[in-house]
Amino acid sequence: MSHNENLELLRAHRSIRKFTDRPIEEELFQEILLAGQCAATSSFLQGATIIRVRNTEKRDKLANFAGKQPYVASAAEFLVFCGDLKRAGRYCEKYGKPFSGDYTEHFIIATVDAALMAQNLVVAAESVGLGICYIGGIRNNPRLVSDLLELPRGVYPVFGLCLGYPDQDPEPKPRLPLPVILKEDVYGDDGDEEAIAAYDEEIKAYYRSRTGGGHGTPWSEQVATLLSEKARPHMREFLAEQGFTMK
Amino acid sequence: MSHNENLELLRAHRSIRKFTDRPIEEELFQEILLAGQCAATSSFLQGATIIRVRNTEKRDKLANFAGKQPYVASAAEFLVFCGDLKRAGRYCEKYGKPFSGDYTEHFIIATVDAALMAQNLVVAAESVGLGICYIGGIRNNPRLVSDLLELPRGVYPVFGLCLGYPDQDPEPKPRLPLPVILKEDVYGDDGDEEAIAAYDEEIKAYYRSRTGGGHGTPWSEQVATLLSEKARPHMREFLAEQGFTMK
Repeated sequence: MSHNENLELLRAHRSIRKFTDRPIEEELFQEILLAGQCAATSSFLQGATIIRVRNTEKRDKLANFAGKQPYVASAAEFLVFCGDLKRAGRYCEKYGKPFSGDYTEHFIIATVDAALMAQNLVVAAESVGLGICYIGGIRNNPRLVSDLLELPRGVYPVFGLCLGYPDQDPEPKPRLPLPVILKEDVYGDDGDEEAIAAYDEEIKAYYRSRTGGGHGTPWSEQVATLLSEKARPHMREFLAEQGFTMK
Repeated sequence: MSHNENLELLRAHRSIRKFTDRPIEEELFQEILLAGQCAATSSFLQGATIIRVRNTEKRDKLANFAGKQPYVASAAEFLVFCGDLKRAGRYCEKYGKPFSGDYTEHFIIATVDAALMAQNLVVAAESVGLGICYIGGIRNNPRLVSDLLELPRGVYPVFGLCLGYPDQDPEPKPRLPLPVILKEDVYGDDGDEEAIAAYDEEIKAYYRSRTGGGHGTPWSEQVATLLSEKARPHMREFLAEQGFTMK
């Protein structure tokens, strides 16, 4: 296997939001899941659970909960990645130990475990020609999502993932220049402002070149808007209800 | 490129804790970083920053902060993945918007962004013959780590990552049976107890088969112990100090 082919595959990533009707063969799908599962896991906790949503009514509801994202319903597969402390936590009782899985650290472990597994699964899927799209929008209505999928205390939905054969071929979106995100020995941000100004022009050009135009908003303005808005202010209370009190 | 080779690569993952002296060629290292950077990012925030630690004194200190993990100092490269809201946040002022990046949701976005980028980078590294080991231990002393790397408010160290050419060849550690972590339409845990009991035997056999034996503790007991202990109880306060108040 050529090294370059692997790196090229990773660099070719782009979100797919339009899928063909072709289903994913079950055997292949299982192989992708098994590959995803081999990602590293913090302290061997294996604190992630995947809900594969096949029921079409549930799919429609999730597409609605997540906001205007019809591909949640139409993609060949839709997975909800959950942080899960329940599976491990119930063994505390068996071994006569008190359960104390409600620290902020536990929330980080479960969230990171879910993300590492998901990204490994994404690479597996893309390596066999599938397209994917992460759906953070399930955190718009995490209570409704949790009730629909019967997520118990100790489990929370981190994000969703659409998978299917692509019916579109968008260009990868340029990323920030490497020196902006890679620092040596100390954080420091000398030179970032100029690099980001140039990147903003690149992003504007990227939007202009897409079919149908696009909003043309530079990166810096997009993220300024994002960080000035109330971001899913229900999350804290929802997580506490699910047992993630983050003490 | 054979589909199977990609999936096999992902399934062959194991943590490497002993590296040869061979450095990673700079050009290859840059390619790995660029590939890692192409992972998906929530709302295009690109909320992750990598600190590449080359200074040997800093490496030694980090190895010490992280607990008995000498490979933090000896690996060819050591990266600290940070959740970063500062880079984007400073554009709020430029565009005359109030900064409100202190919701729990922002913490999730930054943490997930760091994890997705890290895992993409890990796959890139492993595909060219490198070995890796995630270092959650940098959260043992996040204040000392942050001071050492001069992480400003709005930035926090999620985990470290050792990279280098492997000087050991351990077996991949078996993962939970797929039906335990993959559910259909609803959470449900019917059958999990039996499946985990069988898995516990598999894990005990895995430890017995390793050179030098090993502790032989079943998975369920390991995680019960983990979730009964105080888990880095300083994280909440540390994160608040760094600006992640998680309201």
